[in-house]
Amino acid sequence: MELTNLIRKAAKSLETPFLVIDTSYVKENYNKLKSSISNTEIFYAVKANSHPSILETLRDIGSSFDVASKGEIVKLMDIGVSTDRMSFGNTIKKEKDIKFAWENGVEYFSIDAEMEVDKIARNAPGAKVYGRLAMSSNDAEWPLSGKFGTDVDHLINILKYAKSKGLVPYGVSFHVGSQSYNKYKWKEAILTASEVFDKLYKEGINLKMINLGGGIPVQHTKPIPSVEEIGDVINNAINEYLGWVNGLRIIVEPGRSMVGNAGITVSRVILKSIKGTQLWVYLDAGVFHGLMETIENFRYEVIVDGKENGEKITMTLAGPTCDSVDTIYDEIELPINIDYGDIVYFINTGAYTNEYATYFNGIEPVKVYTVKELEEALNNKTGIMLV
Amino acid sequence: MELTNLIRKAAKSLETPFLVIDTSYVKENYNKLKSSISNTEIFYAVKANSHPSILETLRDIGSSFDVASKGEIVKLMDIGVSTDRMSFGNTIKKEKDIKFAWENGVEYFSIDAEMEVDKIARNAPGAKVYGRLAMSSNDAEWPLSGKFGTDVDHLINILKYAKSKGLVPYGVSFHVGSQSYNKYKWKEAILTASEVFDKLYKEGINLKMINLGGGIPVQHTKPIPSVEEIGDVINNAINEYLGWVNGLRIIVEPGRSMVGNAGITVSRVILKSIKGTQLWVYLDAGVFHGLMETIENFRYEVIVDGKENGEKITMTLAGPTCDSVDTIYDEIELPINIDYGDIVYFINTGAYTNEYATYFNGIEPVKVYTVKELEEALNNKTGIMLV
Repeated sequence: MELTNLIRKAAKSLETPFLVIDTSYVKENYNKLKSSISNTEIFYAVKANSHPSILETLRDIGSSFDVASKGEIVKLMDIGVSTDRMSFGNTIKKEKDIKFAWENGVEYFSIDAEMEVDKIARNAPGAKVYGRLAMSSNDAEWPLSGKFGTDVDHLINILKYAKSKGLVPYGVSFHVGSQSYNKYKWKEAILTASEVFDKLYKEGINLKMINLGGGIPVQHTKPIPSVEEIGDVINNAINEYLGWVNGLRIIVEPGRSMVGNAGITVSRVILKSIKGTQLWVYLDAGVFHGLMETIENFRYEVIVDGKENGEKITMTLAGPTCDSVDTIYDEIELPINIDYGDIVYFINTGAYTNEYATYFNGIEPVKVYTVKELEEALNNKTGIMLV
Repeated sequence: MELTNLIRKAAKSLETPFLVIDTSYVKENYNKLKSSISNTEIFYAVKANSHPSILETLRDIGSSFDVASKGEIVKLMDIGVSTDRMSFGNTIKKEKDIKFAWENGVEYFSIDAEMEVDKIARNAPGAKVYGRLAMSSNDAEWPLSGKFGTDVDHLINILKYAKSKGLVPYGVSFHVGSQSYNKYKWKEAILTASEVFDKLYKEGINLKMINLGGGIPVQHTKPIPSVEEIGDVINNAINEYLGWVNGLRIIVEPGRSMVGNAGITVSRVILKSIKGTQLWVYLDAGVFHGLMETIENFRYEVIVDGKENGEKITMTLAGPTCDSVDTIYDEIELPINIDYGDIVYFINTGAYTNEYATYFNGIEPVKVYTVKELEEALNNKTGIMLV
C-alpha cells in the first residue's frame, strides 16, 4: 500500500512499532479477484489476518471465509457471519472442532487422509468434503508441500471412502504455495485436479467444486504476475479441463493477496553497532512481534524514512529481543547513513504478520491501527517518549 | 522432569495440549547451581519462562532476575520483587525502558555498543554497566553469536567511553550459547573476559563483576555435562584468571537450566496419514503454540504413552496449523504403532516454549498448569470431549 503522509506523520509522533491497515485495499483486492476469475466465490483465508477491521470489511462486501479452527469460526460468528459462508479448510482438524462446526451449520470440510474422513463421518454425518491434492511448489516464497494434500490416486480412494462413510464427495482443492511466482502452476494444478473429476465421474461420483486455494502473490521485492494474468490462466484451464462439469462451483481461498498490500509496519532504529567489519542495525520490531515470515527470509520492501535516495550498503537488520533467531535479514541493502531513531517501514505487511506475534521477552505484539484509528491516535496523542 | 502418574492420568482426562510445570525442580536447579559455582549470585533469565509460579518460586528462595524489557520489570514488580534484584541484560534497550528501569531503581545495564552507552548516559546517569563479549558458540544447540557482544578491544573502548559519559564500568558478561555442550567454553570465555579486567585495571578502571550468562544445558537427547562439572570448570577458571580481583562479584543468568526440566508438554495425535512412502503424524501441539524451538530442529525427548517399548520407525511429526513451517520434526523415530488419540509427551519443555506461543490459526497458546492446578483440574473435570 502507499506510504501516505498520514503514516509518515504518525510515525514521527506515535510510539513504534505499529502496523497500519487500510481496508480500502482489501475491498479493491476482493473486487479485482472477483472480476479476474470467472464465476468465482471468494473464501478469505482468515489465518492471514483476523483483525476485526478486515473481517468486517469482507463480511460487508459479501465474502465467504476459509477457517482453520473453532477459534476462527467463533470469531466470525461473533461479528454476525453466517456459518453457510464458511468452509473448514484445515486438513488437520480436532474432532471437537468438526462437531462444533457441523452443529453450528458449517457444511464444507477439507480432507487429505482416510482418518480425517472417519473423524468427519463420526461428527458431521452427510457433510460435503473436498479432497486436497499435493502440489510441488518450488516457485513459491512460503512453500506448503509435503504437509498437506496427497496424490491423485490416493485422493480418489479417499473421496470414494468418504462416500462409503455417508459423506458427500464434493470437490478437489489444491494450494500452489503461498506467494507463488509462476502463474502456470494453477494450470498444472487444474489439469491434475481434472483427473480426479474425470476418474470419479466414470465411477458415478459427480464432483461439483474446484477449490483453487490461495497463493496469489503480493508485490514485494521481485516482479510478480498480476491477478488478471493469473485469472486468465485459471479461466482458460477451467474451460479446457473442467468445462464439461455441470454446475461447477469455483472457489478461491486468498489470504495474502487480500490483505498483504493493506498493511505497513512502522518501526524505529533503536541501536546501531559496527562489529568487526559488519554493520548491525536493531529495530524495535522483530521476528517474534510481527515479522515472523522473515525467519524463512521472506523479503519485504524496506524503506528508511527521509533516506530513500541515499547510497546503500549491506548490513544486518535485527529485532529487539535477546535471541539471535530474532534477526530479520542477515544481509540487506539499506542507506549508509541509517541512524538511531530513524523510522523504518516494512511495506505490504498486511498478511501473516500480527497473526504470528508473541509476547516473547515481555514485549507486546505489534500494535495494529486502522487508518481511522491512526488519525484518532494522532489527534489525541500526549507527550509520550517515542523511543 | 519425571513423567508422573498424575501427569499420565491428567493426559487421559484433560483436553490437550498443555504444559505442566513442577516448581520443585526450579528450586532444586537453583540450589544445585548455587552450590556448584562458588560465591555466585543467580539472576534468573525471565525470558525463558515468565509464568507466575516460576517467578514466585524464585522470588521466595532469594533469586535475582535478568530482565529483557520494561514488560518483564513490571511483571516482577507486580509480584513484589524489588528492583535491586534486577539486572537489565538486553543489549538492545528502548530509551524509555532504560528511563523506566532507572527511575524505578534498576542499577545494572548491559552494553555492547557506544550508542547503547549514550542511551544509558542520557536516561540512567551514574548507572553500573557491564560489557558483553561476543563468543564463538559452535557447541550450543541454540547459538547466539553475531547479534550480541563484541571483541575484547572494542569492549574495552566501550567501557572507557561509558566512564567518560559518567557511567560506572562495572563488569564483563558473555554467553556461551543456549544449551551449550562444551564445559570448556566457560573457561575460554573467562580467560577472554579476564583480558578486559586486566587491561582496564592497568588504566585505572577496576571492574567488579563477571557475568557468566546462561547456556547451562538441560538433558534432552544428547549427553550433557553436569552442573557440577561446569561449576568446577568455572570455579577453577575464575581462581586462575580473576583470582586477583578484589571483591569480585560472580553473576550467572540461567534461563533454560532453571526451568527446562521443570516442564512436560502433553499433546495428542489428531491425524495420521501415509503419503507415498512417508508417514505423517499430526499433533494438537505445534511450532506456533508451544514448540517454537523445534523450528531450528531443537531436539526434545518424545514419548508416546503406553508405547514406550515398541518397535520404532522414522516418521514426520507436524503441528495442527495450515502452515508447513509448523512441522515439528521432519524425521523422528517413534513407535511404529502410533495411532489416533495417542498421548505424546515432550519431556523437559519448561524453557522457551509457552513464552513463544501465538494465537496463529485461531488456536490458543498451550495451556499451562502447575502440578497443583493439574490436580485440581483432574478433580473438577466434567465430561468434556478430549480430541
